[in-house]
Parts: sequence; C-alpha cells; structure tokens
Amino acid sequence: MQPIPSIESIREAAVRIKPYVHRTPVFTSVIVNGICGAELFFKAENMQKVGAFKARGAVNAVFSLSEKEVSYGVATHSSGNHAAALAYAAQCRGVKAYVVMPENAPAVKKAAVAGYGAEITYCAPTQQAREEALDNLVRHTGAVFIHPYDNFNVISGQGTAALELMDQVPDLDTVLAPVGGGGLLSGTALAVFGLNPAVDIIGAEPLEADDAFRSLQAGKIIPVEKPNTIADGLRTSLSELTFHIINTHVAAIKTVDESAIIEAMRLIWERMKIVVEPSAAVTLAVLLTRREELQGFKIGLILSGGNADLDNLPWRK
Amino acid sequence: MQPIPSIESIREAAVRIKPYVHRTPVFTSVIVNGICGAELFFKAENMQKVGAFKARGAVNAVFSLSEKEVSYGVATHSSGNHAAALAYAAQCRGVKAYVVMPENAPAVKKAAVAGYGAEITYCAPTQQAREEALDNLVRHTGAVFIHPYDNFNVISGQGTAALELMDQVPDLDTVLAPVGGGGLLSGTALAVFGLNPAVDIIGAEPLEADDAFRSLQAGKIIPVEKPNTIADGLRTSLSELTFHIINTHVAAIKTVDESAIIEAMRLIWERMKIVVEPSAAVTLAVLLTRREELQGFKIGLILSGGNADLDNLPWRK
Repeated sequence: MQPIPSIESIREAAVRIKPYVHRTPVFTSVIVNGICGAELFFKAENMQKVGAFKARGAVNAVFSLSEKEVSYGVATHSSGNHAAALAYAAQCRGVKAYVVMPENAPAVKKAAVAGYGAEITYCAPTQQAREEALDNLVRHTGAVFIHPYDNFNVISGQGTAALELMDQVPDLDTVLAPVGGGGLLSGTALAVFGLNPAVDIIGAEPLEADDAFRSLQAGKIIPVEKPNTIADGLRTSLSELTFHIINTHVAAIKTVDESAIIEAMRLIWERMKIVVEPSAAVTLAVLLTRREELQGFKIGLILSGGNADLDNLPWRK
Repeated sequence: MQPIPSIESIREAAVRIKPYVHRTPVFTSVIVNGICGAELFFKAENMQKVGAFKARGAVNAVFSLSEKEVSYGVATHSSGNHAAALAYAAQCRGVKAYVVMPENAPAVKKAAVAGYGAEITYCAPTQQAREEALDNLVRHTGAVFIHPYDNFNVISGQGTAALELMDQVPDLDTVLAPVGGGGLLSGTALAVFGLNPAVDIIGAEPLEADDAFRSLQAGKIIPVEKPNTIADGLRTSLSELTFHIINTHVAAIKTVDESAIIEAMRLIWERMKIVVEPSAAVTLAVLLTRREELQGFKIGLILSGGNADLDNLPWRK
C-alpha cells in the first residue's frame, strides 16, 4: 500500500495548488437550517475549477511530479470529473494529458475534456477495455498514470477543501462528505482529524452503490457490483488506500435512497440558488432523512461538484 | 410626482434594511469573461431573501412607515417577487400583509406568499380586476398600498444593491441592470450616479417588452401592450417616477431577443453554477450580443433574482 497522507501533506498540497484553484465560498441557508434543525455550512466545490473538487487532487498530483517524470505527460481513464480535472491540471503545468474515455460518454463530458486540450482515446464501455487502453497508452507515450483516488497526492489534494472549510467555520461538530471511490472522504477525514480529532466525520453514500457502507461493516473491501444511482460520481468502489483511511477515521457511513438524493438536490437548487450535481446532494439527503440525530449541531457539508446535465434533471416529469 | 430618491435616501435605506436582508456576494467567472472579452462582476441578488432584490425595496418601504401608518398592515397586487417580498417585509415588522394575486398564478408563487403569512385575495387575471380588488381591500382593511416600483422608498431600497456592489468592486466602468417597471434600474442609477457620475448605467430589456427603450426614444412613457417574454419579471411598464429617473441618469437601454436571454441564462447556470431566473439573465444577454462594444471594460451586472421554475426550464426540449 502507498503511504497514508497526513495533515502535513494536505497543508503542502494547499500551498502547491493555490495558484490554480479557487478558495471556494461557504454558503448557509436559514430555510434549510430550519428544515434540518441544525446549522449547516456548505463548502461550494461546485464552484471550483472544472466544476468539482477533483481539480484539487489532480493539480496536486501533476505538480508533485518532477520535471523529468512529467515530461511525457499524464494519463488516466475516467468518464467524469477526474478526466476534466487532470486535463486542466496538465494544461496548467504545460504538459500533455491522455484520457481514456468510454465511447458512450456524454458529449458534454467529451467536450469538456477536449476543451482543456487533452488527447482522448475512446474504448468500449467496459472496465477491461478501459484498463487495456490505458496500459497501451502509458506504454506508448511514457505518460504517468494518475489514479482518480488510489493515489497519495490526489487524496492530499482533495483534503484541502476540508482544510479551508475548517478555517472558514472553525467550530464545526461534524463534517459530511460523499463517498464513491473514497478520495474526497479520505482527504476530508485526514484534514479534519488532523486539525481537530473531536470533530465527527461521516460519509454519505447512495444505497444503490453502498460498497463503503458494506465494506466498513465487513472489515474488508466489498466492491459494488451493479451501481444503479443517479449520483454518477459515486458509482466507484473503495481502493485499498481509501478503505484503510476511512476505516480508521470515519465515524459512520450513512446511506440514502434515490428519492432522498433528488429531494436534497432540488432543495439546494430551489432554496440556495446554486447548481449541484446529484453526487453533491447525497450529504444533505443524509441530514434530511435523519433529522432527529443531529439536532442543533454545526455541520459542514462538502458540495462535491456542479456538473449537472441541464437537459436531464432528475425531477423532470 | 413623488420626490426623487437620492444617494442619501439610499444610504438611509441601507441602514434601515440591514437586519433583514443579505449583503449578497459578487461572483466572477474566468470563462464568462473570456467569452465576453470584458471583466464581469455579478451581484448575486438571486441569493437575496425571498430570492430577489425585491426584498430590499419592500423592507425599506414597510419599515419607513410610522407605527400608526403600518398598524392596519400593507397591501399590494402582484403575481411575482414583489408579493413575496412584501409578505416577508410585513412578517419582519410583525404586521399583516394583503396580496391580490390573479387566480391563475403559479402554485409555487401562491405557496411562497402564503408561506410568509400573507393573506391572499384571488381575482380574475386582468389589470382592472387586480386594481378593483386592491382598492376594495385597502378600503376595507385600512392597509397601506406599497406599489412594486412607483414608490420613493421602494426605489431607495432597490438602490442598496448597487450601493453594495460599488463598495465590493470600487472601480467599475459600467453597471447593467434589467428594466421592467424600472424600480431596480432607477435605484441602481441613483446609487451609481451618486457615488461616481463617471460610471455608465445601462438598462437591459427584452425586445418583446421594450417599453423603456421606446419610451426613452420618444421622450414620453409608451406602455408595453402585449409583453411576450420569458423574463416574467420584466413585463411591466415604466411609471412616471421611474421614467423620469431613467431618462435623467441612464446612458442607454439595450434590448435582446428571447434566444439571447435563454443562452445567457444557461451560460450562468452551466459555468457559474448559480440558479437565476430569466429576468436576471437579460443583462448578460446584452453583453453576449454586443461583445465588440465593451471590450476590456469592468462591468457590474445585477443578477435580479433566482426564482426560476425548475419544472419548466426554457431550454427544455
């Protein structure tokens, strides 16, 4: 296993990525507080570069490489925000990015990755085809593979969102982050624990992709078989590294069904007037379905991203 | 005609309304700046109380009344944001609000007004029926009628958004505000002119409701006959008071067609990750359709509101 990131590696990441990412604002809503019976602080990573916290980890990973290591570029496979984030990070550093995407990826995501100047290789939409295409690419180009979450520097970068949040709102009782592959939740947990071990860290996960919940129950990684959630950023499974960190530092994983995610997403759009993607609404969905458990608490929530498909909103009739 | 508000009445309004309204944030976007070739600063009144700048004017009007004047409550006719704003302002002051709404108003707007505790009287959806119902109401209740824009205190309140913007971004070249009845544009013009007469003030208006444009051309009020725009907040016509102020202080009214409004609205949602209603996108639509005119300028835009109908987005296929 790779080394475990620490509060120091997260602090170093914050310095390293500062010129290329936003210090995002924290939003509050009297109405949403009233509904939940708690005081909520939303860290708006939907307003981050590329529209998601993923810019933090990707920039940190790309800028952690030496001149020599990075000289042949960087590569990844992803159909989501990590692909755009890596393309953006490579553009910032002035090196090439190679992205393997399934040929059926949404046109808007292909355009975003291409817009940051990445070279896209299309493959069949299976895990095996992806990995083969990536292996091929790395062998032929010499590019460095940057995993979306099973990576020390990526996790350290993702932790900088919580580092900022703890500075912006110093006296939180609890911090919630969504969990897919676990990069954001791992970084969040390490940052929050490193700053104040008394603060509870809770992971929020769709019931339809509840591998983190089941893995923590079982004490070993149980990958999700057929994730079937609108929270497209949370369909991946924990890695060895993220499982270890989450198992050590996270108080609980709470799951929510699809209707709760849609209700939470709509509440954020309607009442807070900000655009978030389904994956970002899973934390609020946890609070909406467990109002009795956190009455009166000061709770931080990481709004992970804002890349919603405006032509296909989940509440569309 | 009523007296003309001044920078002093706007400053007094800012102090009066402070406990009840938000100092809204100013957003910027590197991507949108690149598209427009100018440096844009968006004053986010979509995040204001009740989701629109209207809270400022309504609160100022209600709190400007004496204890005796306000003792029988306040009243208005509106199917839009002013109705909710007046209901909110009355709730803040602890007095009754009476609102005349057309019976065919959207359920979500009826619910918003009722949610702030206002008493709603429904009427037929004609101007005559509205005014008769309001006259009746005022006669029977003794409530004070607060006009949505033809009102000294309302205009002074609306001007506080620009007062804040000029403080948040001190060196603007130009400020744009949308124009319907003209309350926001009048308040904006008076605030900006009062602080710095060198700053240009431009009104943004839908081509399909271009009474302000035509009135300024003609030198007299020419009401809009059949406004046919998705910018539902801008379907009203100038009043004597707002015409006078706009005619004195506004450099130009620029009109835009419906497709430009929809494009601008979508751009704000997609790139800035904030929810704005069609009326709020009209200012950016002006810039998108006139990129050559304002190259390199520092431009402030008032995002007037965020009460979009999430079930009926204008780009819905």
